Amino acid sequence: MTQNATEKRVLAAIGQRRELVNDAIDIDLPLAEPERLYEASRYILEAGGKRLRPTAALLVGEALADVEASGADYRAFPTVTGGEVDLMAAAVSIEVIQSFTLIHDDIMDDDDLRRGVQSVHNEYDTSTAILAGDTLYSKAFEIMADVGGNPENTLEAMRLLSSTCTKICEGQSLDVAFESRDDLTPEEYLDMVERKTAVLYGAAAAIPAVLLDADDEVVDAMYSYGVESGKAFQIQDDVLDLTVPSEDLGKQRGSDLVENKETLITLHARQQGVDVDGLLDESTVETVTEAEIDAAVSKLEAVGSIDYAREMAEELTAQSKDRLDVLPDNEASDLLADLADYLISRGY
Amino acid sequence: MTQNATEKRVLAAIGQRRELVNDAIDIDLPLAEPERLYEASRYILEAGGKRLRPTAALLVGEALADVEASGADYRAFPTVTGGEVDLMAAAVSIEVIQSFTLIHDDIMDDDDLRRGVQSVHNEYDTSTAILAGDTLYSKAFEIMADVGGNPENTLEAMRLLSSTCTKICEGQSLDVAFESRDDLTPEEYLDMVERKTAVLYGAAAAIPAVLLDADDEVVDAMYSYGVESGKAFQIQDDVLDLTVPSEDLGKQRGSDLVENKETLITLHARQQGVDVDGLLDESTVETVTEAEIDAAVSKLEAVGSIDYAREMAEELTAQSKDRLDVLPDNEASDLLADLADYLISRGY
Repeated sequence: MTQNATEKRVLAAIGQRRELVNDAIDIDLPLAEPERLYEASRYILEAGGKRLRPTAALLVGEALADVEASGADYRAFPTVTGGEVDLMAAAVSIEVIQSFTLIHDDIMDDDDLRRGVQSVHNEYDTSTAILAGDTLYSKAFEIMADVGGNPENTLEAMRLLSSTCTKICEGQSLDVAFESRDDLTPEEYLDMVERKTAVLYGAAAAIPAVLLDADDEVVDAMYSYGVESGKAFQIQDDVLDLTVPSEDLGKQRGSDLVENKETLITLHARQQGVDVDGLLDESTVETVTEAEIDAAVSKLEAVGSIDYAREMAEELTAQSKDRLDVLPDNEASDLLADLADYLISRGY
Repeated sequence: MTQNATEKRVLAAIGQRRELVNDAIDIDLPLAEPERLYEASRYILEAGGKRLRPTAALLVGEALADVEASGADYRAFPTVTGGEVDLMAAAVSIEVIQSFTLIHDDIMDDDDLRRGVQSVHNEYDTSTAILAGDTLYSKAFEIMADVGGNPENTLEAMRLLSSTCTKICEGQSLDVAFESRDDLTPEEYLDMVERKTAVLYGAAAAIPAVLLDADDEVVDAMYSYGVESGKAFQIQDDVLDLTVPSEDLGKQRGSDLVENKETLITLHARQQGVDVDGLLDESTVETVTEAEIDAAVSKLEAVGSIDYAREMAEELTAQSKDRLDVLPDNEASDLLADLADYLISRGY
């Protein structure tokens, strides 16, 4: 298929599953009492989001169980060894964890906006935002505990979910600590990205395999698929910030550079002797010109830093797609390959 | 036994298990990397604490499995249906959850001190404190996932742990919301206390019964034992604040009243028509005199509010001790009764 047809197909697949996931969120995370707490907990979930992680989870389930994403029975996936398991609940649990991390990260980074609306601590207050995140945290485990099927598999899924959450906290802690480091290496940065972002993709892809009683080999391959494509996604984010025109990005191109945000690209350039801090020294997002950004990008291109990051994202994506060889050959496994491509090709 | 001998016995039992719990915390929650995150996560745990919830958990385990608190094999409790389960890990998990709630509550209440040291957000910073709490949260689930034994029981324990955490968040949310309410009833207050504090005692007592494969009747009785004695503990706290001399309390007697903290006592008094807000209107903790507090306490006594709270604490304690009838008659079950008494008799 052409790039365009592939993207159309994956967008349709994401859109179809997003609707199903949104319906399931309303059922699995109802507006309980105290209402203000649950409103705050659901605020970011209701504000939107592509549901990429739940989509990945559902596609792994569809590929392994060979079922289609439609109808009322979508929640009951047949396991390899007989019985049924509610993979939609597992997908919701992953999205609920993602939402908890966004709420707490926004407090730590003092970010005002999220998904086009106020961050929870802005819309409510910091105490409510802390508690909303904490509530989503335990709700995610409650939801995962009730997927049905073999208790041993559910326990393993919860073990994976909890160790993933620990890694996310470690990654966020490193991210905060890195702000005051001037000797950071690309390897350290990649380790941080893996923990902070990629492991939740890994869990999203691996947990359905665990719950469906798949072999360890399949579980491990799905985890690697998720981690690698999740890492590629983050790295490509840094590339796109420098290479996509501002009007397509929906924000100033090069804003990471203007705001002195360290990325894989700047860390590589430093190693090549580039004075990264001097690239856009006097600029702000409001005052910087396209010509200044072009000049900065040229310097980064000249030492191969942009290619370095782009190639790493492409390599990780190729690796992640190879992991899919353990899956049956069906539409869902094809879509997982498309999804990996989409993660590094998308606009903003 | 006399009151004094009982207290001596229960303090010795708590002290003995505290040492074992502290050793287990060091093993189950090691100082990992990033070190600053794990230091912050362990900071409140290392600052002390009586380990009352783990002690209750271990005593339920000892009572049901008929084992003694000693030796290297203490971690391997025999289950009713054969096999072994690490109840010490379950006890540590409960304490780790307790510690997470303290760290986040201190941020929300902007409390400077905890267990005689700085609160985590004061000693480190708010971001680190949020993350430290989040890390303990997932660590608690990781630790609980690895207790061994029957996976169905472990899953049930994790289900109970997660629903308990949700209730704790709800309780804390109510507590914050109640600060701006002037029409609070004693029933609403008791509901808040149950969720915010007592359910974790319930989980601490019930989870060992779940893990040891005990009958539902025993599990339910242990949960009620924990919730009722935990509620009694909180109610008695409010009584002691008014009735124990300042030198024994280690802080100004009546400080709740001076600081306009609503308690079961003040809510009862309001229903009796007492102008609670006028009791110590102009005072601060620094300026209030013993005579002023005596006068306020007299007014609360005159309408029966202190007796109301004291009797409720005693009734709940008596109820909680009746729950222990389902346990075998051994030293550990006797100690659980003593523990319930201790919770409402202790000094500060």
